[in-house]
Amino acid sequence: MLDVPFLPFCAFLGTLGLLCVAMVGSWCQHWRGGFSLDGSSRTFNWHPVLMVTGLVVLYGAAALVYRIPNTWNGPKLPWKVLHSSLALGAFVLTVLGLAAVFRFHNSQGTPNMYSLHSWMGLATVLLFSCQWAAGFGAFLLPWAPAWLRALYKPIHVFFGSTILMLSVASCASGINEKLFFSLKNGTMDYKLLPAEAVFANTMGLLILIFGVLVVAALARPSWKRPDSDSPDSRQPLLSAER
Amino acid sequence: MLDVPFLPFCAFLGTLGLLCVAMVGSWCQHWRGGFSLDGSSRTFNWHPVLMVTGLVVLYGAAALVYRIPNTWNGPKLPWKVLHSSLALGAFVLTVLGLAAVFRFHNSQGTPNMYSLHSWMGLATVLLFSCQWAAGFGAFLLPWAPAWLRALYKPIHVFFGSTILMLSVASCASGINEKLFFSLKNGTMDYKLLPAEAVFANTMGLLILIFGVLVVAALARPSWKRPDSDSPDSRQPLLSAER
Repeated sequence: MLDVPFLPFCAFLGTLGLLCVAMVGSWCQHWRGGFSLDGSSRTFNWHPVLMVTGLVVLYGAAALVYRIPNTWNGPKLPWKVLHSSLALGAFVLTVLGLAAVFRFHNSQGTPNMYSLHSWMGLATVLLFSCQWAAGFGAFLLPWAPAWLRALYKPIHVFFGSTILMLSVASCASGINEKLFFSLKNGTMDYKLLPAEAVFANTMGLLILIFGVLVVAALARPSWKRPDSDSPDSRQPLLSAER
Repeated sequence: MLDVPFLPFCAFLGTLGLLCVAMVGSWCQHWRGGFSLDGSSRTFNWHPVLMVTGLVVLYGAAALVYRIPNTWNGPKLPWKVLHSSLALGAFVLTVLGLAAVFRFHNSQGTPNMYSLHSWMGLATVLLFSCQWAAGFGAFLLPWAPAWLRALYKPIHVFFGSTILMLSVASCASGINEKLFFSLKNGTMDYKLLPAEAVFANTMGLLILIFGVLVVAALARPSWKRPDSDSPDSRQPLLSAER
């Protein structure tokens, strides 16, 4: 494929990710009434903002840590800590994003977890929680044997990309659903493509493009750490020998 | 990763794909009134069936052709023809699926192309049409030079997986949207999770799993054709020398 260097591509991805976060924040602030914690639709508004920020953009940043060429030499441990910390940050935002929609539903008397969007989204978050816990146990704690780490690593890498794909698919279905809920009267009908619809549809496409580009960057052979089985890669956070 | 042989995995994927097609057909037949060409919602019902069959399952089969170990030895041309024929079949079903929803909208006076689902879906189909045309031009017709084929091949492979990811994301948002449209009265409200909702949500998850597993199979290094740059791989359908 065309020989794109990683760091400029990464800067482009970072800009695109920040644009997605800015757009979802602007959508909720400008068209959907802003933010609060009172259980109203303004509490719901935290849901898309936290999900896009956590489960897409910060998650994408965490996933790409080992593609930074600086991580290929010297001790791997600081990068492991950075990778797991970014992923943990993404997970915390994701859980807060779930809490926002549950609080909104409960305060409105709306059932939780009935739509395909919610099933996909919860499945994605459950996979993410297993991924984080298994990654922490296998790669940062000292008691996983080397053979288990070697066996688990490609599974961790596979689910890393899969969770991001499911996450952007969940975002797209959620934005689509929210626009059908919100835009249904007069000149603001979704069918008539008011400014909000054009803005949020464009945002949805940009989120999809962000996800596809992160998955592509993860899959690109020349951007992978050349010697992924170096002894250092098996160094846990709390080494039993220390 | 665990050493799964390709052919049993492929048989499992085929079964899962057929299950998705059977489920979307049953959903439209049993709960959504069946099929017709009269412009009613029964015309719309062709849309999910043709999209899941064409743009997900048949597309997935086309994408996996070069992972069959039999394709690794002997002439590549018959496999190229099979790959492009399956992809063309998928494309034809996809276009018929689009025609169904446009005919339904036009006969109901509903605008086309306003939702995020429709933007994603059309972007996916446009990418697919470029992918098929560029693949045919580069790999089956004689006039593309070898350097252009070598340059384009990884791009074709990248978009192969990307289009499938976008396709399953479009299906998930479409199923979610259709359920909100259709299930809104009394005991059949989507919120109350009637049998149809459980069935269609499960189908949506199975379609996502199918897409993820196909993309995973495509990415697995040990399932790729070992010598992808053999001279035979550059044999076009209509060789200029013949």
